[in-house]
Amino acid sequence: MIDAISFDQNRIKYLDQRFLPLKETYVDTNDYLSAIEAIKTLAVRGAPLIGIVAGYTVVLAVQNYEGKKKDFKAYFTKIIAEVEASRPTAVNLFYATARMKAVFNNHFENSQLPEFNELILKEARAIHEKEIQNCEDMARFGVEQIKKDLGHILAERKLNVLTHCNTGTLATGGLGTALGVIKKAYQEGLINCVYTAESRPLLQGLRLTAWELEQEQIPFFSHADSSSGILMQRGKVDFAIVGADRIAANGDTANKIGTFNHAVLCHEHGLPFYIAAPLSTIDTTIPDGTHIPIEERNGDELRSIYGRQVATASTPVVNYAFDMTPAKFIRGIITETAALSADYVQAINSAFESSNSATVGSSC
Amino acid sequence: MIDAISFDQNRIKYLDQRFLPLKETYVDTNDYLSAIEAIKTLAVRGAPLIGIVAGYTVVLAVQNYEGKKKDFKAYFTKIIAEVEASRPTAVNLFYATARMKAVFNNHFENSQLPEFNELILKEARAIHEKEIQNCEDMARFGVEQIKKDLGHILAERKLNVLTHCNTGTLATGGLGTALGVIKKAYQEGLINCVYTAESRPLLQGLRLTAWELEQEQIPFFSHADSSSGILMQRGKVDFAIVGADRIAANGDTANKIGTFNHAVLCHEHGLPFYIAAPLSTIDTTIPDGTHIPIEERNGDELRSIYGRQVATASTPVVNYAFDMTPAKFIRGIITETAALSADYVQAINSAFESSNSATVGSSC
Repeated sequence: MIDAISFDQNRIKYLDQRFLPLKETYVDTNDYLSAIEAIKTLAVRGAPLIGIVAGYTVVLAVQNYEGKKKDFKAYFTKIIAEVEASRPTAVNLFYATARMKAVFNNHFENSQLPEFNELILKEARAIHEKEIQNCEDMARFGVEQIKKDLGHILAERKLNVLTHCNTGTLATGGLGTALGVIKKAYQEGLINCVYTAESRPLLQGLRLTAWELEQEQIPFFSHADSSSGILMQRGKVDFAIVGADRIAANGDTANKIGTFNHAVLCHEHGLPFYIAAPLSTIDTTIPDGTHIPIEERNGDELRSIYGRQVATASTPVVNYAFDMTPAKFIRGIITETAALSADYVQAINSAFESSNSATVGSSC
Repeated sequence: MIDAISFDQNRIKYLDQRFLPLKETYVDTNDYLSAIEAIKTLAVRGAPLIGIVAGYTVVLAVQNYEGKKKDFKAYFTKIIAEVEASRPTAVNLFYATARMKAVFNNHFENSQLPEFNELILKEARAIHEKEIQNCEDMARFGVEQIKKDLGHILAERKLNVLTHCNTGTLATGGLGTALGVIKKAYQEGLINCVYTAESRPLLQGLRLTAWELEQEQIPFFSHADSSSGILMQRGKVDFAIVGADRIAANGDTANKIGTFNHAVLCHEHGLPFYIAAPLSTIDTTIPDGTHIPIEERNGDELRSIYGRQVATASTPVVNYAFDMTPAKFIRGIITETAALSADYVQAINSAFESSNSATVGSSC
């Protein structure tokens, strides 16, 4: 398994994703400021992975404290603020620091520092383990759903699947969300080949998903996002599965730009299109996708690619980072407690009712 | 107007498109071997433009001949072969050399060399002028069609149009095919804004179409191909128009990879999707799109972008250069003699019956 993040002998070890797939650089540090820098510079990315790194970063800071117990509270407050400032829009960061603050509030007063350190480490590991477990559960439910929906093809041959962006170990610290389902389906002998759309502008599909699949020795091809149509037209794709950034109460799903194009193409070709994301991605306060804010990012992401300028600085560019796929295009939403299907309003309500889950956010 | 190609005082002048939009390099030469090199290295590209350059290349070679008339035939045969070898899959190249050979066969024996030189130059100019005229005619028919189909919107506001790849002056030497229609529509006050999809892998939309629109001072945005869906979903696009590489007898159209995705997205959003291409692009010997061969090109076009490596050399890639859009997604095919619409089999037959046209191929 890919070692995107680990914590051992009081040191954090992470894979610097900025240089993938051309360079595999692992960084091993006991300096919490270096770990914060890794979040800031996108050396680690993917919502769940950021949450995991944030937890371990607090552990590093706490274990390196050399002052007296009475001065610790001010120090702890400062490091929590530093961690939270590292990537202020990442929800999972705040989920992780909230859990760390809860340990402090519940246990610090009645603990000695070494004992408190152990509790903080235990909580960070719990965040990590919960992510791993979520991925395992999504993978299990996803594979069940695929077997159910595509059994008629599986009776004759293995499946070819299309995915977008990166939703694997590099994003989650576990098996992955959508890519986790694909990996488990491959392990169970259901998958022939993965088509990973390159995912312009930042090429996470061509760079990161391709790298993960190569590591896992799963057969794949990368392709320009623009080639997805002809691949489906020629019968080379049986279904698609992607992650989610935010899901509305009715199942409308915001995800990496290009997701909606793929969903429409699947619809046109009669192919099932799935979302895999933890329940925490679903925001039931948002009635439908039209209310999900869609971030527009700096046009330089298009004007230069991986450091190479391709258009003039004056070229006007529209650069949505995400798009919104209406629920009608989505065959199923795979969560860690169940595979949901239409009517999503009802299915999502039931999933939350039967779950006490307070899991960490999404993946792509 | 952009000066993509011109011939004056026994010299050819062309814009080297390889470095656009970052550098505008014009090359001016009377050496036919340099002109052949420009075709070989893609310094000039676009089917009609290649045909025009091929014609002028023969002129350069002929006018620089310093031998005797009796030895000319061998020389002429050699240069024709050299021109034809410069890009052997470009149909327009052979169309141009066929016209040059016809001038030789019809006039050489009874002409003196200076007189023959004039006839050859006249023929090369005729090829160029025919392309310019084709573009003008397509633009006129295209604008008429748009006014007819989108008059209900034009009654209230100007239109926003999406295009793909490059189909302008850089590809045709004239106004352009699809981009020619857009330019004329803009001149007539029908267009608010052009969205030019970047057109991975080779980025002709982001690099070349953006450059042309900037030169023509037409308002535009470039966007990742993956953003076309959200642009339509948000009502930012009223119609799309693109070029064609080959059109079957039933209207099915092969064009630059990504065209089919855009057509399906237009269909989903109820937006008209047009093709603009000269009649010579229509191959009535091909019954439908499933018989059009689709070129797969070297995966390095994806693995590295504009000289910058982004994926490992071992990353498996599928790289279709073109895709095929079934006629049912196409609202109209704009040619130089008429705007055709379904039933295309009938419309195409009528267009050929009413035309003696022997025009040069397509544009993108």
